[in-house]
Amino acid sequence: MIDDLIERMLNGDKRATARLITLVENDEEKAREIISRIYPHTGNAYIVGITGPPGAGKSTLLDKLIRVAREEGKVVGVIAIDPTSPFTGGALLGDRIRMQRHSTDPGVFIRSMATRGSLGGLAKATSDAIKVLDAYGCDVIFVETVGVGQIEIDIVKTADTVVLVTVPGLGDDVQAIKAGLMEIADVFVINKADKEGADATYFELNLMLDLEKERWEKRGWRPPIVETVATTMRGIRDLWEAIKEHHEFLERSGEIERKRKFRAEEEVKTIVSGKIARMISERLDEEDVASLIEKIVMREIDPYSAADLVLEKALGVKA
Amino acid sequence: MIDDLIERMLNGDKRATARLITLVENDEEKAREIISRIYPHTGNAYIVGITGPPGAGKSTLLDKLIRVAREEGKVVGVIAIDPTSPFTGGALLGDRIRMQRHSTDPGVFIRSMATRGSLGGLAKATSDAIKVLDAYGCDVIFVETVGVGQIEIDIVKTADTVVLVTVPGLGDDVQAIKAGLMEIADVFVINKADKEGADATYFELNLMLDLEKERWEKRGWRPPIVETVATTMRGIRDLWEAIKEHHEFLERSGEIERKRKFRAEEEVKTIVSGKIARMISERLDEEDVASLIEKIVMREIDPYSAADLVLEKALGVKA
Repeated sequence: MIDDLIERMLNGDKRATARLITLVENDEEKAREIISRIYPHTGNAYIVGITGPPGAGKSTLLDKLIRVAREEGKVVGVIAIDPTSPFTGGALLGDRIRMQRHSTDPGVFIRSMATRGSLGGLAKATSDAIKVLDAYGCDVIFVETVGVGQIEIDIVKTADTVVLVTVPGLGDDVQAIKAGLMEIADVFVINKADKEGADATYFELNLMLDLEKERWEKRGWRPPIVETVATTMRGIRDLWEAIKEHHEFLERSGEIERKRKFRAEEEVKTIVSGKIARMISERLDEEDVASLIEKIVMREIDPYSAADLVLEKALGVKA
Repeated sequence: MIDDLIERMLNGDKRATARLITLVENDEEKAREIISRIYPHTGNAYIVGITGPPGAGKSTLLDKLIRVAREEGKVVGVIAIDPTSPFTGGALLGDRIRMQRHSTDPGVFIRSMATRGSLGGLAKATSDAIKVLDAYGCDVIFVETVGVGQIEIDIVKTADTVVLVTVPGLGDDVQAIKAGLMEIADVFVINKADKEGADATYFELNLMLDLEKERWEKRGWRPPIVETVATTMRGIRDLWEAIKEHHEFLERSGEIERKRKFRAEEEVKTIVSGKIARMISERLDEEDVASLIEKIVMREIDPYSAADLVLEKALGVKA
């Protein structure tokens, strides 16, 4: 069955592609088999991370970016990571529905990532889905995530180009979130640039970049700031050009190599920790675990010593 | 030195306490030693998680909750988790500064969590800091986090009582974030309840709770909805009462036991994975890793097979 699905996917069958993503998300054995088999067909897609605070208009922006990329004949993949808890699985994003207009286009593949049920979590599910879309033939894969939370940031920073979307006039915490993301951004977008405060936001971002001058000069890339109004297409083509310029910069400087290595390393780490978690839960007796937890709660053993016992029992590893 | 610090902390020395938290954050060996030693002195604090979307006014609310808890003579700890990336370390939250007015009060201990440099990450740093504050003598420990991102949610859901703060009139993604958090909330707060749209938000939350009726009935606790205007103290005492009622419910139903076990289990998991990550990086040769990564990028080996090699080499574990 997997053979058949892979062959169909390599021939451009979207349904087979969707099925493969579901399999790698939900079945560890099959994930391994599928990824190993398609791996030689990957490595061609350019990965663009789109991140920013809630309400910045990322999905609308992406909707328009897809359009521009399609005009150039690019095959486009989108992985939209939902800012929901591991509990709910699905998301309620109205914006996503807008994007779905592209889903009848054979050159666009959109996938929402539900974290529930994905073994090894969001990071693994995302990197596996990227590989399936890469093998499917996507020239560019957009990974959209709300830029808050360590896992989400870890995911987006493995992209080739990271686009940080902000909007004028956000509150205090949101400023802090932005600050946390500043360092991973390759291109800044001020969306809703027709709103009051856009100039101030531009000035502020520009100032932040001026203060970081040494770093950008050393690296050879100063992140451009693109003003957009996604709803009216204003600035979208400029943004697309900025992404392509960053791509060229990465190729020219050889930094793309470093990015790919970083991505590979992150992936191996993710697989390793998922594997160990699984081994531990398979090899430990439920009752033993329960009695160990009981002892911790009763203050008879501390959590560090308990962790040592778990490691020894499950993996035969001496701490 | 640790002996001395622990003794001083147990005698109520805030500076020693701060020093111990820094040590558990930054030094794995010492963390182990400190936590093992103070562990018998822990288990008395009540843990309250405060979460919600950026801009909901969590810090102001917390500032006022501290005041109310202090009026009752409670010793209060606060761990504020900054929504910054692992890169920046610090945060820029103006709100936090407001809270600091309590820091001259010997009965209040406020700690901001910077993720940078904390071995094993945010979850471990938080649970260790909770234990230090618990041993210090805190009756209640508030853990404040922006409720977006899997790690942040994982942290907050280990609290005894989870307070979800929302505000009227948030955008689309933010609604989705709330939806993701609905299931972990024990108390809902509509802050800035004097703003337009507060009634609609109340109605909406109440409806969501009505739809989940079966679940709350089974559990025996329907999360109350408290309307507050943190800046003017409106509703803050009601919120504090709601938290205490939930505490009583947990004691009465025996659910507190389950919560404590869950917390202990999460903690052991966190320690185990941190330990394994460390063992791997210690035991693997840097050059071997580099050449393995190179092979992945060149598509000579797939990431899953590479992960198997890592596990075998570093831990002697056969997949």
